[in-house]
Amino acid sequence: MIRAQEMGRYVENGILDMGITGLDWVLEQNSKVREVARLRYSKVGFKGVKWVVAVPNDSPIKDIKGLKGKIIATELVGFTTRFLKSQKIDATVEYSWGATEAKPPRLADAIVEVTETGASLTANNLRIIDTILESETVVIANKAAFRDKWKKTKIENIVMLLKAALLADGKVGLKMNVPKGKLKTVIDILPSLHTPTVSSLSDGAWVAIEVIIDEQVVRDIIPSLRRAGAQGIVEYPLNKVIL
Amino acid sequence: MIRAQEMGRYVENGILDMGITGLDWVLEQNSKVREVARLRYSKVGFKGVKWVVAVPNDSPIKDIKGLKGKIIATELVGFTTRFLKSQKIDATVEYSWGATEAKPPRLADAIVEVTETGASLTANNLRIIDTILESETVVIANKAAFRDKWKKTKIENIVMLLKAALLADGKVGLKMNVPKGKLKTVIDILPSLHTPTVSSLSDGAWVAIEVIIDEQVVRDIIPSLRRAGAQGIVEYPLNKVIL
Amino acid sequence: MIRAQEMGRYVENGILDMGITGLDWVLEQNSKVREVARLRYSKVGFKGVKWVVAVPNDSPIKDIKGLKGKIIATELVGFTTRFLKSQKIDATVEYSWGATEAKPPRLADAIVEVTETGASLTANNLRIIDTILESETVVIANKAAFRDKWKKTKIENIVMLLKAALLADGKVGLKMNVPKGKLKTVIDILPSLHTPTVSSLSDGAWVAIEVIIDEQVVRDIIPSLRRAGAQGIVEYPLNKVIL
Amino acid sequence: MIRAQEMGRYVENGILDMGITGLDWVLEQNSKVREVARLRYSKVGFKGVKWVVAVPNDSPIKDIKGLKGKIIATELVGFTTRFLKSQKIDATVEYSWGATEAKPPRLADAIVEVTETGASLTANNLRIIDTILESETVVIANKAAFRDKWKKTKIENIVMLLKAALLADGKVGLKMNVPKGKLKTVIDILPSLHTPTVSSLSDGAWVAIEVIIDEQVVRDIIPSLRRAGAQGIVEYPLNKVIL
Amino acid sequence: MIRAQEMGRYVENGILDMGITGLDWVLEQNSKVREVARLRYSKVGFKGVKWVVAVPNDSPIKDIKGLKGKIIATELVGFTTRFLKSQKIDATVEYSWGATEAKPPRLADAIVEVTETGASLTANNLRIIDTILESETVVIANKAAFRDKWKKTKIENIVMLLKAALLADGKVGLKMNVPKGKLKTVIDILPSLHTPTVSSLSDGAWVAIEVIIDEQVVRDIIPSLRRAGAQGIVEYPLNKVIL
Amino acid sequence: MIRAQEMGRYVENGILDMGITGLDWVLEQNSKVREVARLRYSKVGFKGVKWVVAVPNDSPIKDIKGLKGKIIATELVGFTTRFLKSQKIDATVEYSWGATEAKPPRLADAIVEVTETGASLTANNLRIIDTILESETVVIANKAAFRDKWKKTKIENIVMLLKAALLADGKVGLKMNVPKGKLKTVIDILPSLHTPTVSSLSDGAWVAIEVIIDEQVVRDIIPSLRRAGAQGIVEYPLNKVIL
Repeated sequence: MIRAQEMGRYVENGILDMGITGLDWVLEQNSKVREVARLRYSKVGFKGVKWVVAVPNDSPIKDIKGLKGKIIATELVGFTTRFLKSQKIDATVEYSWGATEAKPPRLADAIVEVTETGASLTANNLRIIDTILESETVVIANKAAFRDKWKKTKIENIVMLLKAALLADGKVGLKMNVPKGKLKTVIDILPSLHTPTVSSLSDGAWVAIEVIIDEQVVRDIIPSLRRAGAQGIVEYPLNKVIL
Repeated sequence: MIRAQEMGRYVENGILDMGITGLDWVLEQNSKVREVARLRYSKVGFKGVKWVVAVPNDSPIKDIKGLKGKIIATELVGFTTRFLKSQKIDATVEYSWGATEAKPPRLADAIVEVTETGASLTANNLRIIDTILESETVVIANKAAFRDKWKKTKIENIVMLLKAALLADGKVGLKMNVPKGKLKTVIDILPSLHTPTVSSLSDGAWVAIEVIIDEQVVRDIIPSLRRAGAQGIVEYPLNKVIL
Repeated sequence: MIRAQEMGRYVENGILDMGITGLDWVLEQNSKVREVARLRYSKVGFKGVKWVVAVPNDSPIKDIKGLKGKIIATELVGFTTRFLKSQKIDATVEYSWGATEAKPPRLADAIVEVTETGASLTANNLRIIDTILESETVVIANKAAFRDKWKKTKIENIVMLLKAALLADGKVGLKMNVPKGKLKTVIDILPSLHTPTVSSLSDGAWVAIEVIIDEQVVRDIIPSLRRAGAQGIVEYPLNKVIL
Repeated sequence: MIRAQEMGRYVENGILDMGITGLDWVLEQNSKVREVARLRYSKVGFKGVKWVVAVPNDSPIKDIKGLKGKIIATELVGFTTRFLKSQKIDATVEYSWGATEAKPPRLADAIVEVTETGASLTANNLRIIDTILESETVVIANKAAFRDKWKKTKIENIVMLLKAALLADGKVGLKMNVPKGKLKTVIDILPSLHTPTVSSLSDGAWVAIEVIIDEQVVRDIIPSLRRAGAQGIVEYPLNKVIL
Repeated sequence: MIRAQEMGRYVENGILDMGITGLDWVLEQNSKVREVARLRYSKVGFKGVKWVVAVPNDSPIKDIKGLKGKIIATELVGFTTRFLKSQKIDATVEYSWGATEAKPPRLADAIVEVTETGASLTANNLRIIDTILESETVVIANKAAFRDKWKKTKIENIVMLLKAALLADGKVGLKMNVPKGKLKTVIDILPSLHTPTVSSLSDGAWVAIEVIIDEQVVRDIIPSLRRAGAQGIVEYPLNKVIL
Repeated sequence: MIRAQEMGRYVENGILDMGITGLDWVLEQNSKVREVARLRYSKVGFKGVKWVVAVPNDSPIKDIKGLKGKIIATELVGFTTRFLKSQKIDATVEYSWGATEAKPPRLADAIVEVTETGASLTANNLRIIDTILESETVVIANKAAFRDKWKKTKIENIVMLLKAALLADGKVGLKMNVPKGKLKTVIDILPSLHTPTVSSLSDGAWVAIEVIIDEQVVRDIIPSLRRAGAQGIVEYPLNKVIL
């Protein structure tokens, strides 16, 4: 319901006690809020989004110094203006209502635009000359609310669960049965992140092992476990993980 | 393949031994079938659907007594007619082939329409004056089939599984490792719905606890469990639950 | 990125060390590759795809002998040509760029087309006269790569995981608590595919049982387990299974 | 806004003075209305829709006599029931809420369904045994309204315009310049439907000809006109035509 | 390519010599541009868009005086702020990034939003208390460019064509043949907007009449023309009309 | 129904007497057919499609000589192979089943691909080094059929109508009334492509002018006509034009 761009405002003025949004929009709005946590995805390859300065491939502009006296189109007018000022670069920053990447060279000399892979910039014949902001998801809280003990605990509980859900996103559960004699060999194969749960079975010659591991190491570990004597190996999905 | 509206008929005449449909259509068709179970979703907030009587916002009609002599459009002609008769209200009930909510005030004085939130009625400038039927999903069986012992068992097995799947919809599994000394504190935090499974671990100082809980209480319980000393807390999804 | 039709080529010429594709396209391209594994889905009812010879319902052609001197449209020109040659049937096989089923009778006398249920053939008034290829998913490897020990192990590890994921597709995990006295009754109900994991609980009068079973037998087993005294029966999903 | 099925009712009871709907639904509802006009499309190939009786391809039922004692599913319950009664065939006609073509053979022995090309019936393995109603678009009027002179004129004006629009649908305008000496040859080529408009030009040696013709004869006539000496031949679209 | 919101800016700073946009956005941006023309659609019923002040149905705010001290969400921040100032009403105007209608009552006390029919406001339980801007499409020119004679002519030519296209949108051409003796009767029926073109035919007893009329009067005129003796009446579409 | 790629084959072998397809596919299939006409669109800016050779931006290949010894992926295997042979360039041409532009540099060194604007190539980081085929729509006929006099006339009639429809695509009709004294001025403004039709009006002081002109010159001509004294200027759409 609430746009990322507006979250900072509503948390700052106390309409909401807390909110989840992008760091970029908190900075753009210059919101006076308490940053409670950053939510990083555990999946390899996810690197957040970046706001970059891009110019036409054939532009003479080589770096941000070259923006002096130029027109820059962006949705992030506030942050860009403050950033350029801090760099003592005098330029015209214009608000772009959309299709920012299509604006250079006719309607703007450069743009400040959000990008993950840069593919859309390439397709518009644009070249990145600098990154001025790396953004990620942040949990923010109203300052007064965060001084209230009951609310602070509530907010921290929600953050704990959000982190647990994010952590689970790249993890899986693994269980297997192992002959007691091979227990050490099997445990040595498992990542040492946290101690595996070893439980006894009715059949005294065997134990059951259960462990939470990164989805990415599964492909290397399962064949090794199999060769080391583990049986009935099962991988199952997780909703939340709190190590 | 088979519409909800027709299920009652095919179960009544024995083409099918059992079926799942809405209570509303069983009543509309006045089907002579055995109701075996009602399937309620465990998720909070789901309240089934209601068939309501609605009139234009500016209609003088205040309650169902006011329907006397009026035209009522509805897809539920049979039930509505019988209901009005039982209330000794004489009105014209017309079958509506669709777009029922757009009919008043030109084509009908009132409508009987299904609604969950009432939003669509509001958008058509209609006002609810009464609810004449609350419907939910029912499992129905052919009467003769249900007297056949083998078929009855089959039907009951299917109902048990359907209920298990519904029950699982709002529940999750939770496991964690707990130092023996903190076992009681942890168990006291868990809802007392059913006894948690406590299993012994190779490391005699710890036990493993496993429990099925409502997805909604997770947000409150996990932080408490963490503070009480539980470690390696994992939430995992469930397909079916039979308590 | 890589089409099924082209995978054989890229694995054969060593651009790729291994690939997953359909057996049909490996045969069509006559690729010189090592077949490492066939990936069968464990779900009941899935039977792979078939390439069939089909003719118009009112065609006089009764079997593949009748194709002599006829025009056959197909996307599988290479395999079909070799197949007919091996059967000593002389016919014209033309490459079809699509809409193959609409070609008879005007543009072709018969077609060789892939089908799962035959429904699309029926809708085009075509009749199947023979099946010339049953295809399934195959893992193929470059011959030189498969002689390299390190690569061979890597490839086999990947195959093991693919099979584990396929096996999991039709299976679920089941756990329950059982009074010790009823353990044997309960175990007798479970399929004997592999030994269930029986673990001891803190409450010495009960044990916990965990087992992996076919999703399809769940509907029959759960009611029996319930009647035999099992409690807290839970079914959960699996990502991978290695028995 | 108003469904075809309901138009007859609203015109009959005078909520509307006139309406456009299908003949089939007027007959189904047995509406007491005045049929003012039938709207036929002038395009070749359009033949209206038919309600047919269809049975499974392998059903023993050969003609409507064979429906005796059978179950027939249809959306056109009223008309079908009256039709069978008139033919002295005793059968059960059940209302179908949709997916009628999928009902035989399990849920019905035969269906009465609307069809244009029969393709959907073929795809469901059904065979047409008879046509019981050929429907087209009809303009209907309330009987009392049609006795009111002012309303009658209004209705007839609307019908005239509807017919003019339909007539235009398959027609185009054609104009060309012709040397006076070739006027007769050119006029002989034009269809004699109505006299072409011949107007004088400033250049006294030429005349301009304008004519409305069927879109379908254009392909044969234009080349002939060209060879006969017409120049600047132009075909233009029409919205309405009243010959 | 260029958003309506940005057009004023690019025309003002001379990147573009002229542009077409909404009057609302020209006013919002307070652009220093020359307004060359307003483009009104000739179709009956089209009334442009309005920016209205809306509050929740149950809000105590009755008129714009009631906005004092309140929070107003809108995409039209500049215009709204200036408007309220001119009315000496002190309120907080906040930029809304979207979903403005969902903001009251939690996130705003009132909104200023664009609407054509008000339906979307009704659906969000909002009530219009005032209209602060009626907008329509405007052609704007850069002031310097408009002082350049060559550019001014170009711009005026484009405006003439735009108006011709708009004018044509609700108009159609009508031609018919009329016996000379009935010419006056027929001409009296035609609207006197501009003189009809009467051309002589080869057949001296008849003349051809051609006229451009409003699409909406066609339904009344054609039947009258027919009764007055006109024949071969044809209505055809127009692309542009300059009366 | 029939793919462009297959049309040449079916016309060559006489299943069809004539067909419309792309020149590229006729050349690819090397079809022995009679080319009857090329259909060029009259709209400015349409330039047909080109098959180009493209390589990765950072490839050392500069021109087609550089293709020697390389792998080229294309859907146009036949034509490309013959073209390279004619240029005495020895390379491997591989059939691409799709996603051709994503193949370099891993799966191919270069591609031969169809393109209109080159945008998709740019987006895939590819650079055009040469154009080897410019294609347009062609009408082809079976050679034997074209020797048959009756069929030849039929085919030529169809071609005449296709060309008339294409010609009309970028043209419009224009009519206006002009005072006799200004006739010459007005006619001088009109393009001299073909003589305008001037017809006399009842009002002897005026004449009507009708002319077919390119849609693109309308924007310049209409304002001039207006200033020269033309009145009631109307632009109308055309279906077909034969000058």
